[in-house]
Amino acid sequence: MAAVNQVFIAIIGAGGVGKCFLSQLQVLAKRRPSPKLALCYICTSKKALYSSDYSALGFEDALQTLSSSSQAPLDLPKLADYLAAAPSKVVLVDNTSSEEVAEAYPLFLGRGVSIVTPNKKAFSGSYKLWQDIFEASASSGAKVYHESSVGAGLPVISTLKDLVDTGDEVTKIEGVFSGTMSFLFNSFAPTTGSGGKWSTEVKKAKELGYTEPDPRDDLNGLDVARKLTILARLAGLPVESPTSFPVESLIPNALESVASGDEFLRKLPDFDSEMERTKTAAEKEGKVVRFVGSIDVATKQVKVGLEKFDLSHPIAALKGSDNIISFYTKRYGSNPLIIQGAGAGGEVTAMGVTSDLIKVLSQIS
Amino acid sequence: MAAVNQVFIAIIGAGGVGKCFLSQLQVLAKRRPSPKLALCYICTSKKALYSSDYSALGFEDALQTLSSSSQAPLDLPKLADYLAAAPSKVVLVDNTSSEEVAEAYPLFLGRGVSIVTPNKKAFSGSYKLWQDIFEASASSGAKVYHESSVGAGLPVISTLKDLVDTGDEVTKIEGVFSGTMSFLFNSFAPTTGSGGKWSTEVKKAKELGYTEPDPRDDLNGLDVARKLTILARLAGLPVESPTSFPVESLIPNALESVASGDEFLRKLPDFDSEMERTKTAAEKEGKVVRFVGSIDVATKQVKVGLEKFDLSHPIAALKGSDNIISFYTKRYGSNPLIIQGAGAGGEVTAMGVTSDLIKVLSQIS
Repeated sequence: MAAVNQVFIAIIGAGGVGKCFLSQLQVLAKRRPSPKLALCYICTSKKALYSSDYSALGFEDALQTLSSSSQAPLDLPKLADYLAAAPSKVVLVDNTSSEEVAEAYPLFLGRGVSIVTPNKKAFSGSYKLWQDIFEASASSGAKVYHESSVGAGLPVISTLKDLVDTGDEVTKIEGVFSGTMSFLFNSFAPTTGSGGKWSTEVKKAKELGYTEPDPRDDLNGLDVARKLTILARLAGLPVESPTSFPVESLIPNALESVASGDEFLRKLPDFDSEMERTKTAAEKEGKVVRFVGSIDVATKQVKVGLEKFDLSHPIAALKGSDNIISFYTKRYGSNPLIIQGAGAGGEVTAMGVTSDLIKVLSQIS
Repeated sequence: MAAVNQVFIAIIGAGGVGKCFLSQLQVLAKRRPSPKLALCYICTSKKALYSSDYSALGFEDALQTLSSSSQAPLDLPKLADYLAAAPSKVVLVDNTSSEEVAEAYPLFLGRGVSIVTPNKKAFSGSYKLWQDIFEASASSGAKVYHESSVGAGLPVISTLKDLVDTGDEVTKIEGVFSGTMSFLFNSFAPTTGSGGKWSTEVKKAKELGYTEPDPRDDLNGLDVARKLTILARLAGLPVESPTSFPVESLIPNALESVASGDEFLRKLPDFDSEMERTKTAAEKEGKVVRFVGSIDVATKQVKVGLEKFDLSHPIAALKGSDNIISFYTKRYGSNPLIIQGAGAGGEVTAMGVTSDLIKVLSQIS
């Protein structure tokens, strides 16, 4: 039934990243004759497309056919049954940020289904889930790759893995891990010029689509804390969860519980003086303030929050909504290995997923 | 005879990089139970160590046993016979910069022997050799990885491959590709302060071990041209050779043919005024001069030489002997994907070789 060298692809999620991934997958499937890629399942939260005989769905019209499908998504244990019974190896691509899907990774991996995903939840949830995922992968031989869970398509996770796997000693990781925070501070406290008011910059970022629908979901620092959790674990620290180390929230206490993001934005100007003081204090030292995450591997300290940087520091010189990640290691000495560039956006996030898929294909086929 | 999941390692070269690689390999072999790594051949230009029944040599004492060995290296066709007849898959690690070994890659690959190497020669020689290498690899399934041929252990080649393989359009690659040139210009034309005389900085770099024994081998720009040739080819340009595009040499014409590096260094001060003029001209525009390579993919222009950069440009802000490589692509837009850090040295070069080996092992075992 299945061609000799065929690999099935199953996709959960067809939002911003999912759509970009699907178009990259089309190009990939055309360019690479082997292994032959066959789409056997695709779903959103409401609809699905699959057939019990695993006949391949067209990559080109998958989204359109999906939108008019009357099939409901399989629940996750049933999906695992369906994929485990496929007549060729399967790679599951999770393009959601769903915690429920993340929690099912050990189930999929344990049944031989490889996973590639930008979903941070699985790798920054409980340490137990992290262990279950990699144990399931080790015992079944199914692969799990998640480059885009930190810095989107930037080669952050692969580089950290290479450092660790070749026996280097990572001493510190530091950087700007949020495109939203990068944009906000590069505009609020630029290295040249004076920058705008904090609340004005937050509004602008929201209008440009750089924030979550409710900007508090960026300003609470949890997104950065999740990424730090992932990197710290890869560097060997058994971090329990993204709330088990200090994370500075930029949401004023009084606005923590206002009803909506809109109300938050209306009231935020009342708190501009606080951020202005922080900015001025840094300026007096000839520095700028930035929202960074850092992992000190030796002292096992992980933290997320505001820090001051010299104007000549690469973190201060960052532009637009770029991320920057510095790896300090024994081999690299005093000058770190630095990776910098766009760390958010559908196309670059999908790129990380697609390159992970290529790596998995080279190993399982 | 051979264990079920065993891979043989053969090593050519036991100099600076070779020694570091061997110590990383020891750690790797201990950490990873599968596949079992077995050293079946190691040689320098004068001596070798191997046995006709492929019994594994100890990683720990390989160098010492080699130094007292009375075996001569096998010539390359005989080595290919020996490795192709091994009872398990083989990875050949070429830690030399030998052109002769490089030219034998198609032979090894064609016979199923995978290759990992920091040797630039194979990938920056004739375009015919480049084609022969990748055709031999494609037809036999043997792998060939060469991360450390550009930027040592920095993830330069893997990142460029990921961009291309996932369908991004690389428009321009620009950077400082030589640790020696980086050190020279960061000291000669720093962004703050006035810097030393050109000839003084060249002497200092030589004393610190940052140059080749004859500094002209760095100053002629050929090392950078070789790296640009590799990147341009990976980006899709069929560059014929490292001498088929403009390369600016920093060796004054009159000193091209002086007898020795020492005589060159003695006479170099006579030409300081020329470099001083270049530096001053840049300063008048508020810029600094740097020795860079660039590839404009659309216009197919590759060039190597002096360029001026604003003080705030990441290339101007480089420190020590670091490399920096910027990838401008359609997906990344106006802000490039940047990789920065030490691009030379035994440990970081060996790291690129070891991480390549890990990738090959994950695919062939």
